[in-house]
Amino acid sequence: MIYPEAIRWSADGRSIDLIDQTLLPEVETRLQLRTSDEIAHAIRSMQVRGAPAIGIAAAMGVAIEMARHTALSASAFQEKLNDTLQQLAATRPTAVNLFWALERMRACAEQYRERTTGEIACKLYGQATAILEEDRAMCQAIGEHSLSLFPNPATILTHCNAGALATGGLGTALAGVYLAHERGRSVQVFSDETRPALQGSRLTAWELGRAGIDVTVIADNVAGSLMRTRRIDLVIVGADRIAANGDVANKIGTYALAVLAHHHGIPFYVAAPGSTVDLTTPSGDQIPIEERSAEEVRRGFGKQTAPADAKVFSPAFDVTPAELITAIVTERGVHHRPYHDSLRAALSPLEAIV
Amino acid sequence: MIYPEAIRWSADGRSIDLIDQTLLPEVETRLQLRTSDEIAHAIRSMQVRGAPAIGIAAAMGVAIEMARHTALSASAFQEKLNDTLQQLAATRPTAVNLFWALERMRACAEQYRERTTGEIACKLYGQATAILEEDRAMCQAIGEHSLSLFPNPATILTHCNAGALATGGLGTALAGVYLAHERGRSVQVFSDETRPALQGSRLTAWELGRAGIDVTVIADNVAGSLMRTRRIDLVIVGADRIAANGDVANKIGTYALAVLAHHHGIPFYVAAPGSTVDLTTPSGDQIPIEERSAEEVRRGFGKQTAPADAKVFSPAFDVTPAELITAIVTERGVHHRPYHDSLRAALSPLEAIV
Repeated sequence: MIYPEAIRWSADGRSIDLIDQTLLPEVETRLQLRTSDEIAHAIRSMQVRGAPAIGIAAAMGVAIEMARHTALSASAFQEKLNDTLQQLAATRPTAVNLFWALERMRACAEQYRERTTGEIACKLYGQATAILEEDRAMCQAIGEHSLSLFPNPATILTHCNAGALATGGLGTALAGVYLAHERGRSVQVFSDETRPALQGSRLTAWELGRAGIDVTVIADNVAGSLMRTRRIDLVIVGADRIAANGDVANKIGTYALAVLAHHHGIPFYVAAPGSTVDLTTPSGDQIPIEERSAEEVRRGFGKQTAPADAKVFSPAFDVTPAELITAIVTERGVHHRPYHDSLRAALSPLEAIV
Repeated sequence: MIYPEAIRWSADGRSIDLIDQTLLPEVETRLQLRTSDEIAHAIRSMQVRGAPAIGIAAAMGVAIEMARHTALSASAFQEKLNDTLQQLAATRPTAVNLFWALERMRACAEQYRERTTGEIACKLYGQATAILEEDRAMCQAIGEHSLSLFPNPATILTHCNAGALATGGLGTALAGVYLAHERGRSVQVFSDETRPALQGSRLTAWELGRAGIDVTVIADNVAGSLMRTRRIDLVIVGADRIAANGDVANKIGTYALAVLAHHHGIPFYVAAPGSTVDLTTPSGDQIPIEERSAEEVRRGFGKQTAPADAKVFSPAFDVTPAELITAIVTERGVHHRPYHDSLRAALSPLEAIV
């Protein structure tokens, strides 16, 4: 596989096999997890991270746990299922993909409620696998659509990690990069290190480097100067939430990159699953921005780098207004302004009714 | 003293008293240095840093060393002087202020060559003190001129450390902040942490916090979002070199801040000594940009934060074109575009002849 598989079934199908992301970039270790306790710990401790990957992990956690309890009575099995769903839902209280995946697992069990416990367990296993495979297909489709926007050769700037490590497949922002490389096109990536949590240097540089893709880490401070002094063909980033008007909430620093790209006439693309589009949020102004821990800035990686009592302002995300975004790429295609119309068309008929 | 004195004579005048900046922000320790060996070590190891402070330290180092050798013969004294000048010149090979200060010390000794060794040593002590006092006066004047640009209350964004720790006095970019606070005006500062070397979080946050000034550290990624979502009245930064046309070389990230300020209609000021203006450099295109160590990015916080073999691009400085700079403040006043004329007027008649 050209990309690192953040999460998959083990070869014998009896455990969940995932990369322990807390040890990156120093060590690549795969964990084999066999219970929902182990999966809950993996999500809480960020051994697995990235919204799509978390949802997949939770679904697989339900499946693997329930496969151990087929000897229970029907009612005890249902009780155990409810406990497992609750346990996993409590791991990351704000993760939308997590709840969505668990709801699919619950609905699946509900649908087959009258079957034997063995049959229900089997359906749950199939449902978790479907969630994983759908995510892989989504990444692949985003990659194909993104690739249509890349020149050859392409020099690309990205921010944070919207790569394979965050999903079940090729990633979102990085999916086109993997496909370009796989098809022998010339592609070079600059990755912002992405303070405060350094996902760019820790994760993006690791996964692209591992795939043999030319990647260079820059301090976030370098991006503007890089656009002025070298040829950057495009910027591509992921998204945490896309409002109905095309405003994008994403990792802090995305907005500044969009302004810099605009100033230099460089295309600025956002690549994300259609599920990231939230038509119930009219614009970015309605997206709440949580703050991260001040300790990440004062003592980010073991060493004190600011006075112990320094005031810190550390928003986790920022909002990039639609007018600074050249196009939004989803698994359904490349969407242009006005986003209110084009994004609606990108969603399934059911979702678009909202 | 409202600001921390980075470097001064000790109370008995027999040693050089400086803050060990390698221990900041965790511990404030003052060193008492009595020989040029000790001063050379302090400069090389960055216990003292910032172009003006390095020049002052070197001049004081010459003075304190030569005061120990007045029993030598005239020729042995001259030989010792030459050795000391060479030793100190070799500490930071690219520091212009260092060479300028040492040249003043050499010229002073030359002027009094026929006097006794005791008299020459005394003149050298006086010359070093003059360099220190001139720097203090320069900072004070920059502060007064900067203050004329600040509203009251003022919310100010700065980058890196162009503060008291970098000079013999109030600093350059931060001089106006100290004066505003001292005079009871309301001033709030946001300080970029300034990767890769984190001078903003380690030094600027420390020195302003110590003075009781309201300072908040932000990851460099936050600056753009901050300008969009809160009221920032102005950005003020220092300069490493100012070309004849007003282009400014300063710490990496300055250029991006200038673009962001421009996009948001926020004034962008540069505050620096007139000695930073280099009329022999027509524009920023002629300023060479050195690269910093990749290890600062790969292992900057004590822990590995990028793959050990990751490619890194880490320019130390960037160039901000004159058209993005609202005004340049020197000790001689506030200079506006076209800078080629206004900066020439800012220099002494002798310098301006170039």
